[in-house]
Formats: sequence, structure tokens, C-alpha cells
Amino acid sequence: MANEQIPYKIYLNEDEMPKAWYNLRADMKNKPAPLMSAATLRPMTKEELSGVFCEELVEQELDDTTPFIEIPAEIREFYKMYRPSPVVRAYCLEKALGTPAKIYYKFEGNNTSGSHKLNSAIAQAYYAKKQGLKGVTTETGAGQWGTALSMACAYLGLDCKVFMVKCSYEQKPFRREVMRTYGANVTPSPSMETAIGRKINEEFPGTTGSLGCAISEAVEVATSNPGYRYVLGSVLNQVLLHQSVIGLEAKTALDKYGVTPDIIIGCAGGGSNLGGLIAPFMGEKLRGEKDYRIIAVEPASCPSFTRGKFAYDFCDTGMICPLAKMYTLGSGFIPSANHAGGLRFHGMSTTLSQLYHDGLMEARAVEQTSVFEAAQFFARTEGILPAPESSHAIRAAIDEAIKCKETGEEKTILFGLTGTGYFDLVAYQKFNDGEMTDHIPTDEELAVGFAGLPKVD
Amino acid sequence: MANEQIPYKIYLNEDEMPKAWYNLRADMKNKPAPLMSAATLRPMTKEELSGVFCEELVEQELDDTTPFIEIPAEIREFYKMYRPSPVVRAYCLEKALGTPAKIYYKFEGNNTSGSHKLNSAIAQAYYAKKQGLKGVTTETGAGQWGTALSMACAYLGLDCKVFMVKCSYEQKPFRREVMRTYGANVTPSPSMETAIGRKINEEFPGTTGSLGCAISEAVEVATSNPGYRYVLGSVLNQVLLHQSVIGLEAKTALDKYGVTPDIIIGCAGGGSNLGGLIAPFMGEKLRGEKDYRIIAVEPASCPSFTRGKFAYDFCDTGMICPLAKMYTLGSGFIPSANHAGGLRFHGMSTTLSQLYHDGLMEARAVEQTSVFEAAQFFARTEGILPAPESSHAIRAAIDEAIKCKETGEEKTILFGLTGTGYFDLVAYQKFNDGEMTDHIPTDEELAVGFAGLPKVD
Repeated sequence: MANEQIPYKIYLNEDEMPKAWYNLRADMKNKPAPLMSAATLRPMTKEELSGVFCEELVEQELDDTTPFIEIPAEIREFYKMYRPSPVVRAYCLEKALGTPAKIYYKFEGNNTSGSHKLNSAIAQAYYAKKQGLKGVTTETGAGQWGTALSMACAYLGLDCKVFMVKCSYEQKPFRREVMRTYGANVTPSPSMETAIGRKINEEFPGTTGSLGCAISEAVEVATSNPGYRYVLGSVLNQVLLHQSVIGLEAKTALDKYGVTPDIIIGCAGGGSNLGGLIAPFMGEKLRGEKDYRIIAVEPASCPSFTRGKFAYDFCDTGMICPLAKMYTLGSGFIPSANHAGGLRFHGMSTTLSQLYHDGLMEARAVEQTSVFEAAQFFARTEGILPAPESSHAIRAAIDEAIKCKETGEEKTILFGLTGTGYFDLVAYQKFNDGEMTDHIPTDEELAVGFAGLPKVD
Repeated sequence: MANEQIPYKIYLNEDEMPKAWYNLRADMKNKPAPLMSAATLRPMTKEELSGVFCEELVEQELDDTTPFIEIPAEIREFYKMYRPSPVVRAYCLEKALGTPAKIYYKFEGNNTSGSHKLNSAIAQAYYAKKQGLKGVTTETGAGQWGTALSMACAYLGLDCKVFMVKCSYEQKPFRREVMRTYGANVTPSPSMETAIGRKINEEFPGTTGSLGCAISEAVEVATSNPGYRYVLGSVLNQVLLHQSVIGLEAKTALDKYGVTPDIIIGCAGGGSNLGGLIAPFMGEKLRGEKDYRIIAVEPASCPSFTRGKFAYDFCDTGMICPLAKMYTLGSGFIPSANHAGGLRFHGMSTTLSQLYHDGLMEARAVEQTSVFEAAQFFARTEGILPAPESSHAIRAAIDEAIKCKETGEEKTILFGLTGTGYFDLVAYQKFNDGEMTDHIPTDEELAVGFAGLPKVD
């Protein structure tokens, strides 16, 4: 079909959808470093992890040799409700830019959770259900992960307890109501329901919470209530595994039309979307079959890849989670206000960190005002109102397309459009009113985070 | 392909998308009554209408004989950005209900405006651009129409002026910001920018506005500024014509799999969605080729079909628009608070009114608490958070499917899922908190509206 005219949107048929997730680690010569216990400074064992996570998910977390892991039939049925997601040819964007580049994006926003998070939420909820658990606990900041998990739990009849950072709980009541509509129990964090929550409320009266605190509360409830486990929406290997469905679908869709991207671009917070999008392409690169330029885009206000250190660090600010070897700004680093809440994480997936460390991908940091300029331009030309997180990838894709215009090169660009911005209109309003600002941390500000890195290497 | 297994979602290929709109009126023996001038009590002429609407749209408004009207290539290109919309087989809903019925829905919510309104917005904006106009004006209440028009105008580089009912402008700031992101000029109505706005502000200081007032302001600006015309998102024949794309796509998709619906259900406010969805099916019925049960669903709080009168009436509360012969509660009828803002209209499309009058379709009224019960059930089983308007159709579809369960009949039900509920979470919150109430107008309350009907018949 290489010569067929490429439609605006490429949808796979149901029988073309992936039947197995692709485990990128199996093809990596340098494997990502294992999670390490902060107490023993030894790799976390299956037994240690099983107290927090579901058993089958622990297996997936630790498996760095099996290249393909079958997607259970029940999950594939759920995927059929909102997948395949389209690969879109951005004809209108290309025309508006006047670029010879061919731009494609994989759009993950056409489901009620509004992002790719649902791909892993249903998988994690499924394994919890299969294990005979009553429910799962999690934290949510911006709310996309919490919404996705609520939807998955409603579908499976699983109890869902979400600790939502208090300031988000109050400022994003609509996100909260979506979760409640799906039957989730949503608690503002810090709460009085957990020991850690009570302690924090006592020490810092009136605090509006943090993601780190919400994680601690969710983990405490999961580990102290029989029949419950904790689930997490990014960073972990298992999450990247589930998210490989994005890249697998994208590759199948492009292959159908004989299209090979030169450049693949994704935003990077914890790495769930980027890791999923690039998985099969990076696999080819690792096996020496093809080459691709792969670009991670992060906010200049939270530049883990571009200015972080590659070191073991805590995944949470509360320091109760295991240590992960990753590009990090330090678990004590507090990023300045940025409207891409999903990218305000001090660390990064261990898999992506290793790949970046090995020179297999690039990274760049962009400022949020230029991100929103790109978002607005994209909305007006392509119709879709993008999430601030996704707009980081749009920014980089537009920049690469403009370079092609200057050089006359007809490069093919693929980027990940992870979600929609319907719940980010406070940010759009700031931008529309000309009140948005940028903050790039100084070296001194970064030094504070680095100073808190655990001494383990 | 009749025996092929039916996928969860049926997407047409680009070359299967409609190339012409279907003009239902051409097949009606009893044509809808023409718009009438309130001043002359004679049918509005082309010349009279052309002062308010674009010329080509006036032609479409008056044409009740041409069955197919070609969709201009530029509009078809725009449609390809967000269409075809899927016909979804509601496997999960069927399973949850335990019904032998087969349920399908045509989902129009997967675009940033969040509803089917974009189908007519791009058409109206296109003809305005083609006529060489500078811009268009309109009013918006809940905001879906205003958003759709903003998107269409941004795409075409057309100026877009939206008068947004003041209470919505203040209570739905996010809707407003979406429109601003698309470059629209959004003004709270009543404003001080128009004579009628100033008059109303003077007479009723502190008023939070009404749709009728916003219409008056939009029409005033359109008719007093060279290069501008007024556009409207429902009720008109031209709007139903453009919306026929919904039904044409749905029919092609079902035909591919040999599926024929027994019952077709849509919510009805002004009639744009219902008229579009049923168009080709009603055409077959009118030509005696097939029979279908067609059901319009309206809110019990604003029951135009089920309790209204079939009479000439004003389309706006300001009584500046022409008279239309329709099922109406009277332009002075003020429906009680209902969260389905898109269905709070006293009248109804003249085409649908005639069809209902001739016994070619049914209508039923449902209360909003039962509508939100259906919405929540649908969200939890099918994943999509539906708009309150669309949820009226869901309510009726579920009720019909339950009847099938009782009788054992394997009926095929098709309903229109017009949009998403991301901007209706205040309503969902009321429902989640158990604070939602119902109000059915008494006969005395309806009498007030009827008393204001113009004496023209």
C-alpha cells in the first residue's frame, strides 16, 4: 500500500491491534539498573515488591528478558472500547507551517480519561482483580491517572481509592467529579485517614499537600489493608510495557502505508508515554535494524534529562519508595509552578534513563510560554485542544518542521499527542491573558535537590 | 459482509464518507411550513433572509426539492480532520443490562468542540468566507455551538464574535477560554456594545442575560456591520441539512455489516442532532422503502413535542426573528433550571415538527435525575462521560433495551451520542451529591407560554 494516498487518520482494524506488549528491556544490552531497597541497599526482591504491588505486575517489573508478553484477552476487549487510537497526518499543520516535512501524531486523547494513562490503568486493575483483590490505591496530582484508574476499576467492579493532592482537589473539582462519577473514593491529601497524613497535618497545619505525601498515604493504605495493593501510573517498567501498545499501533499503522519516521518525539515526565511510543522503534535501533532520531521533551522548569544527574534516588519526596537509578533532580527538588502537572517529576523511568545515558536518544527542555504558543497554533490548525504536557512534543515537532523548511529536507516526523487540555483551561486562560511566565531553575536551586541524593553508588 | 463479526467501533474509510448532504424535505409530502415575517405575515423572501444570513445558506434554507446537495471539497477536507465519527456497538452496555437487544450509537463527541455542532459550524463559516465576508456573529448558551463556530472560524481565518449569556460566561469560564484560544471574541450578554444590550442593561440592571437577548445582540451586530452575517446552530433547515452527515455516515457503516436498526433514538432541543441522525432513515420511511420506529427524547422540564402546540411562533424570546411553524411552548416560556442547556429551547425544527405532526415519529419526555442515572451507568460501562443532552437518548435507549429483556425481543437500537460532558461537571457534581431535582411544569405554567403565541393562523 506504499503508494496509496495517506488519509488524515489511520485507524487499524481490530484484528491488526497488538496481541502482545513489547518489553523493550529484552533488547537492551545495558539493562536498566534494578530498583534497590533503601534499607538493605540491595535489589528489591519479588517478595519485597509483592507486598506493595500485584504479583503478576511484579513479574513484569522484574522481567528484562522476555521480548513479548501476551495481552490478556479481557484487557484486549477493554482496549477495543477506546482503541485503536488514530495516527493522524497533520496535513493542516504542515500547510500552516509551509514545511516540506511530513508530520504524523499518535493521538491518545480520545477517551474520557483524556490521555494514554488508561492503557496501563486497565492492565494494573485487571491483574489486581485476577489476584482476587478488593481494590487498589493510588495518588493523583493533575488527575489524569486517577481518572483513568477510576474508569478501569468501574469497568472491573474493583474498589478504587485515590489520594488527590489537596490543592488539586480544591482547584480541579471537575477532575474530582469525573472520578466520583466512576465510583472512586477521592480523598484530599494529606488526610486524617492515615498515620502519615495525620503526622503531616500536625507538623504543617494548613498544608495543601504534595505528590510525595499522597504517594505515602496511598502506599500506607495499600499495605495496611488486606486485599489492597498500590498502583502507579508512570516511571515503572511495567507501565512502559503496557504503554508499548501506543508505539506498536503507531508502527503497524505507518508500516501499512510504507511510512518510516526519521524523527520520533515525545514529552517526558516519568516517561510512560515516551517509553511506550518509542518502544518498537527503539527495539529496531537496538537490534541495529534501523536508525531513528528520538527526542524527549521536558519542561525547562523541571529538566531531569538535560540538567539532572544519573544516580540512584527516591521516586517520592516522602522517601518511602525503593531507590531507582535514573536521571534525577533529587527527590527534594521542588519544580516551580508549571501548568504541565504531568511533567513535574524530579526523576525519570530507569529504562529511558539508561537509553539516554547510552546515547540512544536525545533530550531537550522547552519553556512553557513557547509550549502554549505551539499549543494554540496546533489547536487552531489541527482542531484539537492539546494538554500542556503533550504540547511539549508539539513544540519540538514544530521546531523540527521549521528546520526542514529552512533546509528543504522532507523529513518524516512522528510525535505523541498524549492527551487533551479540557481540564487545563486555567492554564490556557493565563496564556490568553498574557499572564504566563517562565522559570528556569538556577544552578543554585538545582544544587539543593542534588544535595539530598542518597549516598549509594 | 453481513456475517462478519461486528467490531466495537465501525469507522468508514475516507472514500466512504458522504460527498453530498441529504435534504430530507425533498422527500416529504407535507413540506415544513416556511418561515414567516412577523411584520408582513408572509413567507420570508430570499432577499429578506439575505440581510441576516449568507446567500448560499439562504438558498439551502429555502430549497425543499433538491434531495442531495454536494458538500464542497473544502468542507469535506475539514470533515476529514475529525470525521468519520464511529458507530459504536455497545457490547459492554448490552452485557451490563443483560438484554438481547443490539445497541449501537453514533458518537459525535470526539472533537474539541465536544459535539456534533461542528458539522454545521464549518459549513456556515465556509459559505461566509466564500461570500467574501469578514466574519460572523452568533450567540451561545452552554457553549458547544460557540466553541464549534470558533474552531471553524480559526481554521478559515474568519472573524468570530460570540455573545455568551452572561451567567454562562461567568459560570463556565472554561468554555469561554476554549473559544478565546481559538481566537474568538467572546462578549457577555447583555453587553454595552449594542443598542438592545444597553437597553436591557438599563431596564434590568444586574441581569445575567438570556439566550433570546444574546440572539438579539448577535443579529444586531451582524446586520449593522458591513461584511458580517449571523449564524445559528440549530432549528434551521440548513442546519439539519449539514447534520445529515451524521445519519449518512451511520447508515453506510451499518449497511456495511448488514445491520438495520428497528428503533432510532435521539435527543431533541432545537432538533439539529435528531434531524441529522434520522435523515436517511426517515427518507426511506417517507419513500415507503423501509419502516423504523423513531423516537425524539426531550426533557420533562421543556417538553416542546409532548406538551407543546403546533403553531407559528417566534424562535427567540426577543421576538426579532421570523416566525416558524413548530411545536412550541411559546417564546415566553421559561424552562426551569435543567442541566441539559442544549435542550432548553421552547420550540423545535419545523421539519421535525411536521414529521411529528404527521405521525412519522414518536416523542417522549424524561426527567433529569433519571437521565443522569443513565449517564452514570453509561459512563461506567461504556467508558465515555456523556453530555447531559446526549444522556436523554441514552435513557430512552436503555429503557427500550430493558423492554427487550422483558419480552425477549432481539431488537436493534441505534441512538445518537451527540457529545461529551467535560464541561458539565457542575451538573454531575449535583447528581453525585444527591442534590439534583426535577421539575415538570404545571399546566398553568405552560399556559403562560401559550398565551404569548402570536395570532397568525
